[in-house]
Amino acid sequence: MLVIHTIAELHVHLRGVTGIVLVPTMGNLHQGHLDLVRIARQYGQFVVVSIFVNPLQFGMNEDYSKYPRTLEQDCKMLEQCGADVVFAPSERDLYPQPQQVTVELPPIANELCGAFRPGHFRGAATVVLKLFNIVQPRIAVFGKKDYQQLYLMRQMTAQLNLPVEIIGSETVRASDGLALSSRNQYLNVAERTEAVFLYQNLVGIRLAIMDGATDFFKLERQAMEVLSARGWRVDYVAIRSQSNLAEPTACECNLVILAAAWLGKTRLIDNLEVLRDR
Amino acid sequence: MLVIHTIAELHVHLRGVTGIVLVPTMGNLHQGHLDLVRIARQYGQFVVVSIFVNPLQFGMNEDYSKYPRTLEQDCKMLEQCGADVVFAPSERDLYPQPQQVTVELPPIANELCGAFRPGHFRGAATVVLKLFNIVQPRIAVFGKKDYQQLYLMRQMTAQLNLPVEIIGSETVRASDGLALSSRNQYLNVAERTEAVFLYQNLVGIRLAIMDGATDFFKLERQAMEVLSARGWRVDYVAIRSQSNLAEPTACECNLVILAAAWLGKTRLIDNLEVLRDR
Repeated sequence: MLVIHTIAELHVHLRGVTGIVLVPTMGNLHQGHLDLVRIARQYGQFVVVSIFVNPLQFGMNEDYSKYPRTLEQDCKMLEQCGADVVFAPSERDLYPQPQQVTVELPPIANELCGAFRPGHFRGAATVVLKLFNIVQPRIAVFGKKDYQQLYLMRQMTAQLNLPVEIIGSETVRASDGLALSSRNQYLNVAERTEAVFLYQNLVGIRLAIMDGATDFFKLERQAMEVLSARGWRVDYVAIRSQSNLAEPTACECNLVILAAAWLGKTRLIDNLEVLRDR
Repeated sequence: MLVIHTIAELHVHLRGVTGIVLVPTMGNLHQGHLDLVRIARQYGQFVVVSIFVNPLQFGMNEDYSKYPRTLEQDCKMLEQCGADVVFAPSERDLYPQPQQVTVELPPIANELCGAFRPGHFRGAATVVLKLFNIVQPRIAVFGKKDYQQLYLMRQMTAQLNLPVEIIGSETVRASDGLALSSRNQYLNVAERTEAVFLYQNLVGIRLAIMDGATDFFKLERQAMEVLSARGWRVDYVAIRSQSNLAEPTACECNLVILAAAWLGKTRLIDNLEVLRDR
């Protein structure tokens, strides 16, 4: 496995390579990321994992500076999974000038997480577009954990006619159900115990929907109240259509429940797909 | 020469083709376009000319609906120039959904022509990015006639790490000096006679700068006054730095004079590069 730090070096090593699958990450890898790499191996001959903590997708008061950077350990894990290349560019290499050309996304990018993290998805889409152009993969794998991001990457790819297929991979969870996330390590012991309750809430809503509940506004509000009562600061709990992340019409069956909430200084997100009978 | 109308068909015909040079046009071709094709032939093995009148780059009250569409005649001219493929997609093929993912450009996109045509360059950049992704050229050729557009395409390409080299091609002029443009055919006989005066103004400013004039604001204002007095409605005359289209610093030598002005219902643009001694 090669670890490459510059675009120029990457171009030399990828010359003539076809069937590239890209797994874009911010590093600090856990089993969720390794699962993306496993999926990538199934889809293509040559797996490139990018590791870049992208300043463009962090807000002013977010955790860019304290986001965990663990390149050496990440590379060990990726070597064992059979990645072919780790691409870990410097900020200077990816943003030699202030980035003034960016990707403007559909209005849904300003809802859900976008409403609480202005510019986040623009920053994420812009760096992914740059990585696509640099790596030129045939396929890219993203986790469903970042459901809205996955949706927006699909939209970007379709609307910009990018020659890339986007694969969404299932969320990997701890044994208690908590979605794996690099940010979980910010949690203290008490918070870690409580954290699973976000997921349990989603499961509760899913059961209610499968039992025939249709007052989604009420389900959302109840979940937010319950979380708040337990000490969470809730950004949102929302039941949306899988197809466009809009509020679902009465006849839509493919739903997704999305939530974001803070435990102390840590913002956690999770989501759960629901197929309901109609 | 193949004339292709759908993305799917184009992909079939371009499979395995390398060294593609793209010449993006809106059709209604004149010698200026044919010169782009000639340059394209020098740079690559396989020349694709796209013809698409892009609604996204026209403003509400602009000439989208009356813009001349002359595909049959264009194809005859391109066949004689040795183009390999004409790609003339339908609006439905290029915009199957309302285009909600667009390219956000640097602030200079809102100056000069951008100040008078809000959203124009965003629309142009977005369709060019789509065409790049569809055609996957190694090189693309743009005319210097649309100087600000050429600059912004270079910026987009650099900042999005597109694997495309942008070639700028010299403006082709009529024997009297008027820059060739599809919009020239909107002019009546009297307007056509007057039209060359835009170019003559730029030449006058260039001479003044080469003679040592440094009060650019005065030169710009004089030119605008002279044009207005002759019946033009002037959008702008501006002396800028070639490197960033900003107002030039005292020590910059590579300048460009840009102008846009209306003769009756026709908006004409032109520009002239100036190298001054310092």
